Amino acid sequence: MSGRLTVIGTGPGNAAQTTPQARAAIAAATDFFGYAPYLDRLDLNNRQTRHASDNREELARARAALEMAAAGRSVAVVSGGDAGVFAMAAAVCEAIEQGPPEWRRLDLEVVPGITAMLAVAARVGAPLGHDFCAISLSDNLKPWALIEERLAAAAGAGFVIALYNPISRARPWQLGRALELLGAILPAETPVVFGRAAGRADERMAVVPLADARADMADMATCLIIGSPETRLIERDGLPPLVYAPRSSVRACR
Amino acid sequence: MSGRLTVIGTGPGNAAQTTPQARAAIAAATDFFGYAPYLDRLDLNNRQTRHASDNREELARARAALEMAAAGRSVAVVSGGDAGVFAMAAAVCEAIEQGPPEWRRLDLEVVPGITAMLAVAARVGAPLGHDFCAISLSDNLKPWALIEERLAAAAGAGFVIALYNPISRARPWQLGRALELLGAILPAETPVVFGRAAGRADERMAVVPLADARADMADMATCLIIGSPETRLIERDGLPPLVYAPRSSVRACR
Repeated sequence: MSGRLTVIGTGPGNAAQTTPQARAAIAAATDFFGYAPYLDRLDLNNRQTRHASDNREELARARAALEMAAAGRSVAVVSGGDAGVFAMAAAVCEAIEQGPPEWRRLDLEVVPGITAMLAVAARVGAPLGHDFCAISLSDNLKPWALIEERLAAAAGAGFVIALYNPISRARPWQLGRALELLGAILPAETPVVFGRAAGRADERMAVVPLADARADMADMATCLIIGSPETRLIERDGLPPLVYAPRSSVRACR
Repeated sequence: MSGRLTVIGTGPGNAAQTTPQARAAIAAATDFFGYAPYLDRLDLNNRQTRHASDNREELARARAALEMAAAGRSVAVVSGGDAGVFAMAAAVCEAIEQGPPEWRRLDLEVVPGITAMLAVAARVGAPLGHDFCAISLSDNLKPWALIEERLAAAAGAGFVIALYNPISRARPWQLGRALELLGAILPAETPVVFGRAAGRADERMAVVPLADARADMADMATCLIIGSPETRLIERDGLPPLVYAPRSSVRACR
C-alpha cells in the first residue's frame, strides 16, 4: 500500500491557530476531501486537487477518500477545529471498519487541531477550567431523548457543558429545548457563553445569564459554553466580563 | 495600565503542535511564569526572564505574574496543552477576582493550545468522536466523593471520559479506585487508552480492555481515555488498533 490518508484539523479558522503539523500535512497531500467552506480556507497549489462535498455526506466522503488513498494517492480529509471532535476522523474510522481489508493497512494519520470550545473559552477567560463535557445537539444520528439524558446528567453532576452543532435550518427547536431543560436544573444566573466564529474576522462573543439565553442568539457557527453552578463572572470596567470555572470545588454531592 | 498578561497554551510538547499564535505570544513577552518543565521547552533569548515555580503553587504564581504585569512588564504565563483546561488560565482569573481592582483593567489574553486528550485521541483514531467529558482525578481542590459522582454520571449517560491528572506520588490510589468504579458500570471489554506524552519523543500509547486496565499503566504524563459502551476497536495486521466512537448512537436511554 503506497497511498496515505491524513485526517487534518485546521483549527477554528484563524491561520494563527493552525498548527505547523497541520500546515505540513496540507502541503504534503495531493487530494483534499472536505466540506467546501473548510477547503476554501486552504491555500492549495495547482498540483493539489479539491474534492468538496456537502456537510451531511460524511461517510460517503470518507469512503471516497479511502478509495483514492488505496489507489496510491496522498489524500487529506480536512475538518475545521479538531478532526476528532464531532468531525471527520470518526467517519473515516467507521468507513475503515466497514470497508475492504486493505483499507486497514493504509498509512493513516490524524492531526489534531484547536477545537471550537477551546477557542471560545480562551476569548472569555477560563470557563473550561474545571470538569467539563462536550455534547453535540444534532439528533441526526442519535435519539433526542439520549441528548436530554446527557444534558441532565452533566448539569446535575456539576460539569460545564460545551454544546456543538447547536442549531441549523433542519434542526431549529433543539437548542431552545436544551436551554429550557438546563434552566430547570441550573441557577438562573449561570453564565452562558455564545461563542461565534472565535478568532475569525466575524467573531461575536456574548455572555448572558441562563435565564436570558435564547436559541436565536446562536447560529451554525456558534459553540455554546454553559457554566456550572460554580462558574464565576468577573465584571470589568470598559472590558467584556471574564468567565471562569474555579479550580477548587466546594459543591456538596447530591 | 501599560502592562499585559498573556496566558499561553503551548500544546502537548511537540513544537509542530504549538500554534503560530502561541509562538508569537512567546516572542512578544519579557517575563515568563510557569512550571519549570514547561518553561524548559521555550527557546528564550537573553532579554527574556524565567520565573519558574513548582507545579502546586498555581495561585501564588498567578498573583506574581499579575503584579509584574501591573508594573508594566509584558508577562507570559505558560502551560503545556491548553491553558484553559486544568491549567493556569483559571488560576489567573481567580487571582484577578480576588486581587486589587487595577488587575481587572490589565490587557489580558488567553492563547488556546492542543490539549492532551486531543493529542492522545489523534494517535489512536477518534475515541472522542462523539459526546465526551474531561475530568481531573486530582482531589487536591475538590472532594473525592464529587469525582466519584461525576465518573458515575458520565459513564452512566454514555459519555467517553478523558482523565487528566490520573496519578502522582501524592495521589497514588485515586486512579485504581476510579477504574474499579467504572468497571462496575461499563462492559469489561470497553477500550481504555493510556496515552503518555503524545507527540513527544517518549510517547507511549496503550489500548487495553477496561477489565485489564491497571493504575500502574499510568504516570503523571498520562491522559486516559475511557470508552463508552459504543466505542469500537478495529484490529489491524502489523499496526496498532484504531479506537473510535461512532458518530451515530443507537443506545437506549435508561
